Amino acid sequence: MYDLLTGLCVIEASSFVASPTAGLYCAQMGAEVIRVDQIGGGPDFRRWPVTPNNDSLYWENLNRAKKSVALDLGRPEGRELLQRLVRSTGQFITNFPASGFLAHDVLAAERPDLVTVRVMGWADGSPALDYTVNNSVGYPMMTGPGPDPINHVLPAWDLLSGAYAAFALLAAIQRRSVTGQGAELRIPLSDVAIGTVANLGGIAEVLSTGENRPRLGNTVYGLFGRDFVTRDGVRAMIVVVTPRQWSNLLAALGLGEAVTRLEAQRGVSFAKDDGLRFAHRDALFPLFEAAIAARDHAELAAAFDAAGIVHSRYRTLLDAARDPDLVANNPIFGAVNNPSGVAYPAAGSFATVPQLERQPPRPAPRNGEHSEEVLTTRLSLSTGEIAHLIDTGVVGIA
Amino acid sequence: MYDLLTGLCVIEASSFVASPTAGLYCAQMGAEVIRVDQIGGGPDFRRWPVTPNNDSLYWENLNRAKKSVALDLGRPEGRELLQRLVRSTGQFITNFPASGFLAHDVLAAERPDLVTVRVMGWADGSPALDYTVNNSVGYPMMTGPGPDPINHVLPAWDLLSGAYAAFALLAAIQRRSVTGQGAELRIPLSDVAIGTVANLGGIAEVLSTGENRPRLGNTVYGLFGRDFVTRDGVRAMIVVVTPRQWSNLLAALGLGEAVTRLEAQRGVSFAKDDGLRFAHRDALFPLFEAAIAARDHAELAAAFDAAGIVHSRYRTLLDAARDPDLVANNPIFGAVNNPSGVAYPAAGSFATVPQLERQPPRPAPRNGEHSEEVLTTRLSLSTGEIAHLIDTGVVGIA
Repeated sequence: MYDLLTGLCVIEASSFVASPTAGLYCAQMGAEVIRVDQIGGGPDFRRWPVTPNNDSLYWENLNRAKKSVALDLGRPEGRELLQRLVRSTGQFITNFPASGFLAHDVLAAERPDLVTVRVMGWADGSPALDYTVNNSVGYPMMTGPGPDPINHVLPAWDLLSGAYAAFALLAAIQRRSVTGQGAELRIPLSDVAIGTVANLGGIAEVLSTGENRPRLGNTVYGLFGRDFVTRDGVRAMIVVVTPRQWSNLLAALGLGEAVTRLEAQRGVSFAKDDGLRFAHRDALFPLFEAAIAARDHAELAAAFDAAGIVHSRYRTLLDAARDPDLVANNPIFGAVNNPSGVAYPAAGSFATVPQLERQPPRPAPRNGEHSEEVLTTRLSLSTGEIAHLIDTGVVGIA
Repeated sequence: MYDLLTGLCVIEASSFVASPTAGLYCAQMGAEVIRVDQIGGGPDFRRWPVTPNNDSLYWENLNRAKKSVALDLGRPEGRELLQRLVRSTGQFITNFPASGFLAHDVLAAERPDLVTVRVMGWADGSPALDYTVNNSVGYPMMTGPGPDPINHVLPAWDLLSGAYAAFALLAAIQRRSVTGQGAELRIPLSDVAIGTVANLGGIAEVLSTGENRPRLGNTVYGLFGRDFVTRDGVRAMIVVVTPRQWSNLLAALGLGEAVTRLEAQRGVSFAKDDGLRFAHRDALFPLFEAAIAARDHAELAAAFDAAGIVHSRYRTLLDAARDPDLVANNPIFGAVNNPSGVAYPAAGSFATVPQLERQPPRPAPRNGEHSEEVLTTRLSLSTGEIAHLIDTGVVGIA
């Protein structure tokens, strides 16, 4: 937690990963983020992983440091309260449909400087999720050794869309501070995905060659990078991106002469050319496989670290979670009282600001925990009015 | 291209994916982003995919809409010019080392309100890349059918770090607009990765259970989602996240009675519980496999679309690039004159703003294309001074 966005209040009406991470990143930078959900929780409220008590470890981590207002969004009174909350703050993050009661035009009619950031599935408004966008743009057909497609496990498009949505929100606020004008920014997962394919050169590549890139397994395209197995059976990833790393790697593995012979045979120099190291991998990889298989991992890792070579061993998630450098002693983590009652290290902002003191992570709210507070402070409702809304089931409290 | 960030000027000294995408997103939102590189190009300047002329399709897409200044960064004079450019603007995106001539403290000594966003490898400053962070946090051990680890192809951590860096830059600028104070925001790939694992509930899950999640192949964890093959051999992903999608899917496949029998046998109701649909996938999947294998894809796709069911077929990247809805007719794409001379659709901002006219994408610069312009406007160097710097090889021009 840092206080970069103090004073900014954002209403979030959302579910799953993309839209909630946009709110999460803002909250971890000090914004007041008020997540509005259906009473009892939205469609992601019980999403796995869950505890034995059916509390979602997913939800309580994606919604950390936010406030929660619970409304019956199936009723006109609940919907109107959400509209009023959006108008009261002027900032709105959502993945609700572009038309309907949370349409930007509907909300902005009474709040023209409103900034709405809307994460969508397909750009035309039809439904899509990370896992159905991903296979539409081709990544599973490039992943693994083949021939079957392999899905990613990390919801990468959701995550990228969420971070981009947080950026887009601040960009639109920056414009508003100059022009006074609000705007809606629509961010479809499908455009994030195909736009990223383009940004990485993929559209240019396949349309100009007329061919798909071959499947490469764990080999990185276009440079020297792959997994190798050491004498003691450790699998490690090694990637080279600079001339110095290349010469240091050859020295560390005693491969200088063998590679010089290969360069003479093939009439090339690998010293400064990532592409050639990739193009001639048929001859390079066997040399490296043998050299690495002749040494234990600890010996190699020490030599690689000393030489600035980029490498790492494959680990499981449990291995990573138990790595003290990565989690227990990592300043981005801290202890909080989670609504589930389960104790574990909780993450804060990915960014570290050396000039500022990092504040500890905060817990996710219980559903409706801040309903009364927010309706009082944001909409100036009286205690009696709020009590009536609770009694009639329009507002839920924790 | 949109003009949300008009008036913001950012110096970018970076390479590869994460840091350049942060600059790219700012440029596509109207900021003036000046990428400063070694004369002749940095370590990513020839990164594959390349054209037959060895122009990088990767570089020219990741650096679209930026300006380019070329300096000899191996010489004190070139380094000083880069420092002066950073100080002249007050905003800096980089993945150069945290210490050295581009250390924030060095730069900020003469520009105390400087905002520096620094993408790093490991948090301690040691080198890491997307592909060596990814296997350190466990995803390849969860991807695919097993037993071997499978790397992702999409550099997801780079991309997420880049978008988060763009967000962090604007958050720090927002703070500066209130407090007048600059700051450095350090964003290590390793913290983005392990923090994301935590945000998705992964740290909580494995530390509380003491076990890794089983490998699931193309099955989505915790809900009903998997790839299925139709009668005519089309593989499609189907994912259910709402009660309505579930009931519509059962109706579309004629599986209502069979699922009701299964619910009775197992003593559960799948209607409103994603987790149960996942937990009982041993019995559910065979029913769906048979129903889907009995129908052709076109028939199923039409029924699914009509019922709001989230699905998509697996495609290659070339299939996607040739899909007119996704690329040729998609308003985020446009035609530009690329430095490579190759013509293909170029992407703009992922976000679409219905209230504003989208401006066409812009090309990447040639190395040093804007050296003279930027040194004139930003540092007020005279024509004679610039000519001397070019003659002595400190400054490069396109």
